[in-house]
Amino acid sequence: MYCLLKFAPLFLAVSVCHGWLFGDFVGKQKELDDKISLWPLPQKFQSSAVAFKLSPASFQIVHAKESSAGPSCSLLENAFRRYFEYIFGDLKKHEKSRKKVFDSDLVELKVWITSSDPECDGYPSLQTDESYQLSVDEPSAVLKAANVWGALRGLETFSQLVYEDYYGVNNINKTDISDFPRFAHRGILLDSSRHFLPLKVILANLEAMAMNKFNVFHWHIVDDPSFPYISRTFPELSQKGAYHPFTHVYTPSDVKMVIEFARMRGIRVIPEFDTPGHTQSWGNGIKDLLTPCFSGSTPSGTFGPVNPILNSSYEFMTQFFKEISMVFPDAYIHLGGDEVDFSCWKSNPDVRKFMEQQGFGTDYSKLESFYIQRLLDIVAATKKGYMVWQEVFDNGVKLKDDTVVEVWIGNKMEEELQNVTGAGFTTILSAPWYLDYISYGQDWQRYYKVEPLNFPGTDAQKKLVIGGEACLWGEYVDATNLTPRLWPRASAVAERLWSDKSVTDVGNAYTRLVQHRCRMVKRGIPAEPLFVGHCRHEYKGL
Amino acid sequence: MYCLLKFAPLFLAVSVCHGWLFGDFVGKQKELDDKISLWPLPQKFQSSAVAFKLSPASFQIVHAKESSAGPSCSLLENAFRRYFEYIFGDLKKHEKSRKKVFDSDLVELKVWITSSDPECDGYPSLQTDESYQLSVDEPSAVLKAANVWGALRGLETFSQLVYEDYYGVNNINKTDISDFPRFAHRGILLDSSRHFLPLKVILANLEAMAMNKFNVFHWHIVDDPSFPYISRTFPELSQKGAYHPFTHVYTPSDVKMVIEFARMRGIRVIPEFDTPGHTQSWGNGIKDLLTPCFSGSTPSGTFGPVNPILNSSYEFMTQFFKEISMVFPDAYIHLGGDEVDFSCWKSNPDVRKFMEQQGFGTDYSKLESFYIQRLLDIVAATKKGYMVWQEVFDNGVKLKDDTVVEVWIGNKMEEELQNVTGAGFTTILSAPWYLDYISYGQDWQRYYKVEPLNFPGTDAQKKLVIGGEACLWGEYVDATNLTPRLWPRASAVAERLWSDKSVTDVGNAYTRLVQHRCRMVKRGIPAEPLFVGHCRHEYKGL
Repeated sequence: MYCLLKFAPLFLAVSVCHGWLFGDFVGKQKELDDKISLWPLPQKFQSSAVAFKLSPASFQIVHAKESSAGPSCSLLENAFRRYFEYIFGDLKKHEKSRKKVFDSDLVELKVWITSSDPECDGYPSLQTDESYQLSVDEPSAVLKAANVWGALRGLETFSQLVYEDYYGVNNINKTDISDFPRFAHRGILLDSSRHFLPLKVILANLEAMAMNKFNVFHWHIVDDPSFPYISRTFPELSQKGAYHPFTHVYTPSDVKMVIEFARMRGIRVIPEFDTPGHTQSWGNGIKDLLTPCFSGSTPSGTFGPVNPILNSSYEFMTQFFKEISMVFPDAYIHLGGDEVDFSCWKSNPDVRKFMEQQGFGTDYSKLESFYIQRLLDIVAATKKGYMVWQEVFDNGVKLKDDTVVEVWIGNKMEEELQNVTGAGFTTILSAPWYLDYISYGQDWQRYYKVEPLNFPGTDAQKKLVIGGEACLWGEYVDATNLTPRLWPRASAVAERLWSDKSVTDVGNAYTRLVQHRCRMVKRGIPAEPLFVGHCRHEYKGL
Repeated sequence: MYCLLKFAPLFLAVSVCHGWLFGDFVGKQKELDDKISLWPLPQKFQSSAVAFKLSPASFQIVHAKESSAGPSCSLLENAFRRYFEYIFGDLKKHEKSRKKVFDSDLVELKVWITSSDPECDGYPSLQTDESYQLSVDEPSAVLKAANVWGALRGLETFSQLVYEDYYGVNNINKTDISDFPRFAHRGILLDSSRHFLPLKVILANLEAMAMNKFNVFHWHIVDDPSFPYISRTFPELSQKGAYHPFTHVYTPSDVKMVIEFARMRGIRVIPEFDTPGHTQSWGNGIKDLLTPCFSGSTPSGTFGPVNPILNSSYEFMTQFFKEISMVFPDAYIHLGGDEVDFSCWKSNPDVRKFMEQQGFGTDYSKLESFYIQRLLDIVAATKKGYMVWQEVFDNGVKLKDDTVVEVWIGNKMEEELQNVTGAGFTTILSAPWYLDYISYGQDWQRYYKVEPLNFPGTDAQKKLVIGGEACLWGEYVDATNLTPRLWPRASAVAERLWSDKSVTDVGNAYTRLVQHRCRMVKRGIPAEPLFVGHCRHEYKGL
């Protein structure tokens, strides 16, 4: 047996490892390292060389007798099937006879939900408890979690513990795991405006997110180039703003499917409707929404950000975000607020007049704040919380206490974290994890080495950093290349946000990540290679 | 009507355009530019606004009466079907009734092979004439070529001329094209050793190569990490040197299929068996082939390049390359010869002794040359020509006159071209086109802007540059990401090597390439996007 001393917090590792330690663990350790590749690494993990076999004919994932969840919990039932298939391949191949059970078999994984409400029909949230305990021993393994969300994380870990032996038989070693995420918000941003992402691609990436214990899909759904979201209230937005009104849109049922597919995997869907900038595509469908730009004293025919001086703009936003607040169940909406270009506002005589009336002088950031402030009030009235890009905070807009500020500008990132948390706001970090910026070689290591709390601040400030996001902006990715470009590079961010701060050994991470990416490939995700080598099961698609 | 004055060589353009010119061609030009996107751009091209319709029920690709090829030419028959399906989609969908033919229809493309031997069952070669003439006019279009190889290029161009009108109907404009490649050798290097590339991936990329008029598949089939080629003579090479002896190998029938699939598309397959370096994987199966490295006075257990001092090495190479020369029909074999590390040779006392005996002093490049010289003689005896990486030339090895030297080192590339051609050798350029080196943004433009003849030298020297290759080395690519990483970045190289030297307008290239990549996507190739935008038919896979 061996014990991952370098990862387990010392207090636990020393006592427990001692108890389990014996003989020839050096060779065994190497052997086990090659077989088991947990990603992200659990907080507390110990494993022995004692191995049990799993037979597709006899092994079952079941609800524990004591569990508050049962067969009516379709979220778990679906997860049981999904992980059974991950472990054994397509269900249909296997007989259902349960005749032969041998002594060294693991016959079941009991899933035990301990809190009175398992949350089978609920949605994950920022407050969700994702912790779980997993004990693998004969004849049963037991996965204990307060609710279904922790159980989902534990099922993933269980499936990662299973390995094929020399004869292709599934084995699992005696193991004890106690696990929980370091950060509550672990997100992936995908951009469906610069390129339309077919539903199939989004769902596949939600699947991959679950394999990496990500729990937030930040859906940057619309932007300047296209507006693929079909609004029931304002159908003209996509009719005139999408790349194509039928083939390049998300119908209400598509959106529902994304949300439900994500929910089944413990993933929150936070939509971003970025204003007042990044809104060119909105202007096609909604007359007068955008500011007309001027060339001298005449309109140039081009348009700038949302027109902040018209009441109609706010009336539109009120109705629009009322719909959004109902379509998306998450408690948060991302309101954007980044990169507002003032040149069009400056060119417009009506805007200049308004600036004068309001006493803004020539400080257009005040006009931006004026708009954002009213928008935030509109969204707050829907009872939703909001996330914003850092500029909104930087410009001194008054924010609700529960606002999440997303720090994305790489330059002076530490200073920004200090300022945002110093002002008492929760924050998430995406600046070091813009995965659209590709480069030659193993850039995952750069993402891996980031320490999100490495900024000057008090413990209270550090606690306000609730997580981070890997962002794959859409300039250069679509259905053809998004998935391999995201995985396993985003996996580096996944471990940074889940595992203990002390998990920083790049060499060890490489060994595990190589196997984790092969696991993703085996499960149908075209995750690209880290370096020279091969997977037992190569990607079958194109 | 309009005339692409900026591309057509002036002597032709002026006279012909004049004849065709009339009225409102500015608006039409914009319209046509949006519809037609030839890639690579033909040498001489003129098109009018007169459009003909193509119906899947009536349109046919047929052998011209005068053609030396007929229905027994399966290469052409297959090509007719392939291009019919590219134009109209799956054949099965369409009825075969030919009842309605309207005046404005194009009813057929007649393919006229003019030389007495159409080469239906032959292989393309360095000397192959790929030129063709294409005339589209009612009621028939005519494609004229000396042999099937030119016809294949013309069929691709014909299919690129077809565009869907507002009603989704296929149209083609009155057009005259006279086309031929600027360079004879236009290659893609794929590396199936660092990662195994499933057959499906290789075939898909041959398909994409044909869409871009590439005509050489440089198959870097084995290297240090793995030996996937199954040798009939030495089966232990792959049994012990492949990543896996059954799942990660190319069987003789796989190799045949690659060669035949390539042949059907006018593509030569040049295998590379790189020695004496890059041979770690060879050593697993062949005892004593590699040089044992020493640590002080004892063997270290590691191995270096092929052992150049043993006769057995040359006996092995004689038998091995005898097989290779029979398996691969092309007149050339690539023998590698790059990056030989001398440290292992230096460490070996027997090698040092041999150096002394031969009077090489301590100049190990002399030993390298000694090996290569003998290897070249061995291969020459098989009646094959050979290609080598530039080091072989740099080290002063005596080369056969028809040797092709591949210039790959970016540093001092112009100087190398000057030296190689100055010594009278033909050369191909790959240095500026190492597509494995990725970077953020539109790096295709950098590849596009390369002018291969931009080095100091006489006209005679320039003529010795017979082409180039886009190389996608395998460190970071496998089945999951190879195809989108290669296309459309390699398309930039395709146009540089096919089109006239004067075709250098990056803006115009961008417009055409955006559409060309959508065409590849429509045909099932996951070519990645150049920038923000969309395709009418997005990629359906994952």
